[in-house]
Amino acid sequence: MHSRQRRRFLSVGSGLAAGLLGISTGAKAAPLARSPGLPVSAYGQRARYETSQRWLTPARYLASTASWSPLADQLGIITPSALHYERHHGGVPDIEPGAFSLLVHGLVQRPLEFTLEDLKRFPVTERICMLECSGNSYREWQGPGGVDVQQTHGLTSCSAWSGVRLADVLAECGVMAEAQWLVAEGGDAARLTRSVPLAKALDDTLLVYGQNGEALRPEQGYPLRLLVPGYEGSISVKWLSRLKLSDEAIYSREETSKYTDLMPDGRAQAFTLAMDAKSVITSPSPGRGPLLPGFQEIRGLAWSGRGRVTRVEVSTDGGQHWQDAQLHGPVLPVCHTRFSLPWRFDGQPCVLASRCTDETGDVQPSRAALVAARGVNSFYHYNAIQHWRVDADGSVHNV
Amino acid sequence: MHSRQRRRFLSVGSGLAAGLLGISTGAKAAPLARSPGLPVSAYGQRARYETSQRWLTPARYLASTASWSPLADQLGIITPSALHYERHHGGVPDIEPGAFSLLVHGLVQRPLEFTLEDLKRFPVTERICMLECSGNSYREWQGPGGVDVQQTHGLTSCSAWSGVRLADVLAECGVMAEAQWLVAEGGDAARLTRSVPLAKALDDTLLVYGQNGEALRPEQGYPLRLLVPGYEGSISVKWLSRLKLSDEAIYSREETSKYTDLMPDGRAQAFTLAMDAKSVITSPSPGRGPLLPGFQEIRGLAWSGRGRVTRVEVSTDGGQHWQDAQLHGPVLPVCHTRFSLPWRFDGQPCVLASRCTDETGDVQPSRAALVAARGVNSFYHYNAIQHWRVDADGSVHNV
Repeated sequence: MHSRQRRRFLSVGSGLAAGLLGISTGAKAAPLARSPGLPVSAYGQRARYETSQRWLTPARYLASTASWSPLADQLGIITPSALHYERHHGGVPDIEPGAFSLLVHGLVQRPLEFTLEDLKRFPVTERICMLECSGNSYREWQGPGGVDVQQTHGLTSCSAWSGVRLADVLAECGVMAEAQWLVAEGGDAARLTRSVPLAKALDDTLLVYGQNGEALRPEQGYPLRLLVPGYEGSISVKWLSRLKLSDEAIYSREETSKYTDLMPDGRAQAFTLAMDAKSVITSPSPGRGPLLPGFQEIRGLAWSGRGRVTRVEVSTDGGQHWQDAQLHGPVLPVCHTRFSLPWRFDGQPCVLASRCTDETGDVQPSRAALVAARGVNSFYHYNAIQHWRVDADGSVHNV
Repeated sequence: MHSRQRRRFLSVGSGLAAGLLGISTGAKAAPLARSPGLPVSAYGQRARYETSQRWLTPARYLASTASWSPLADQLGIITPSALHYERHHGGVPDIEPGAFSLLVHGLVQRPLEFTLEDLKRFPVTERICMLECSGNSYREWQGPGGVDVQQTHGLTSCSAWSGVRLADVLAECGVMAEAQWLVAEGGDAARLTRSVPLAKALDDTLLVYGQNGEALRPEQGYPLRLLVPGYEGSISVKWLSRLKLSDEAIYSREETSKYTDLMPDGRAQAFTLAMDAKSVITSPSPGRGPLLPGFQEIRGLAWSGRGRVTRVEVSTDGGQHWQDAQLHGPVLPVCHTRFSLPWRFDGQPCVLASRCTDETGDVQPSRAALVAARGVNSFYHYNAIQHWRVDADGSVHNV
């Protein structure tokens, strides 16, 4: 019906499409519906032909698990909630929203407990914001590890969040002058506990009950999570249960034995919270089928926990020369940002790479520069430039 | 466990929260998980406690149906794909994407047929954009009709779309100088056919294959639809099958006997395509349970098919006095835009209303002004100011 035999792509260099020309040599329309289709539905589902899915850690890990978002399939900057990456330390609890409460205690004048309905009466605020697990790309510390972009970079996702400003809620409780930290505790079986600097908590941190237009998904913390924009994902505590104002960090398991960065001299850096500038080319990328010769738009995602992406450069020769890619709007702070560059694959082997710069001037480093600064003992915060090698046969590989 | 008995709200007028104060008189934390929760999953679902759903036309209409989005439940500006409003003229067809093709013919130098893969090789573009059925609020032409905001305004939704510029695809086909219209035909059983002015088709019209980060949903035209930003929804033809370049509009059923505006003098206006400035207060709104006295943020949505929303005013006395509401970013052209205004319900009956102004200066009219200009014979394009009456008992009604 639609075999390649009756279609050809020719190069003509025509404007934006940069030479993509489709010629039908035997145009035959697809079959059209001849009987009424399905009726309206109360809550829709994706098409039965769609199979994009998260990549899961092996089942033997049980409740301490992660799933990687299929980043190369993602269109636009909003990750579908069903495909948002996951990282759980005690599995996904089942919390009935009517039984939920949030306790704010510690160094406050008025310890208060809020139901979900109480919190929803505060002024609502919305923010499109990415999250990235600090363990994203951990395989790459030891050299090329992930077999595709889902494995190398799939621990980041971007959603439209709705909730209330934590500062408004804390104001109701009366934060004492000696408070310096906010200790957030999840209601999951792991009681995941993280310390948030109070200045950040009062700046742009949110209590979030909405994701992509509806209630937060169970695996994202239903019914309430913290959202600490730009900081490593695990600090945006899910299934939020208690907030304690404190004069010091709590030094929990998840900020001492885990989520610290082991340096070459054997010391560990703690509280390296902001996520650095990063980008990856999602198309072409490994595992997407061989490239066809001709026009191939290079497409990808860039992000930074420190603010807006201001520039993405793309190289097709492994980093010797760079060209500015086009950024697609809206370009929002601490958000996935789309970039693209018109390109033609001429069948010659090459190495593709992208480099992100953010509004603070933070530039995504080469692997050599990152390793020179931090060694290879680390597990977290790998943000080096990613290289994809394209072979003559159009296959793409992580190198 | 969380009865109202142990919680009180007092008025203290404290900053942004405008006096919402929650006091716990017997703080008792919600039950915490004591055993590991559910593992990661390949494709997530919403929480089992969530019940928001579309409101469906009666089943007797079979394939020509609509469903209204639960607008009062929507958080942020992105409508969940599962809850996007629907309007079908022949039901939802089941189209296998591998069998799909789009034929471009008529007044073109090169009639071409494109597979979905062909179209995806064109430069990708993204746009967050609302759609509104021109029949949205049709019940209100004859006086207050809908029992809640879902019924009065639920035929609008806003998504992040991904696709390609129609202009790029048409450039490959070579549009002839005499072409003035583009006739778009759906592959559904109704063969829904609409005429698009060529200038609009070449300006910002898209061929869309992505919605909210993943493939277009079946009820939104899977695998490909037209997106004509700002125009009445039915012209963004779903399950797109053929595009014919023509020197005149086709005057199809859906732009003659339907989707025209019957004026007081008995004549019908055709091709009234741009959707006018409009807004509605979604909270408080009818059917959401009685208002509690005290702080009640007034929240709503505004939009215009002509560009950005620049101003939303809110009245609490039925339109005698107006205050500027706060617009929540991002404020994007032809998008749902959030507004809010702090307010206190003191138990006195009142009438709430909102009024939208867009960047072209289009101002949402009063019902009286709209009826004076257009009579009450119309079915489509009702965009008058909506009034909600709040009674002393906190109940809310469409008036």
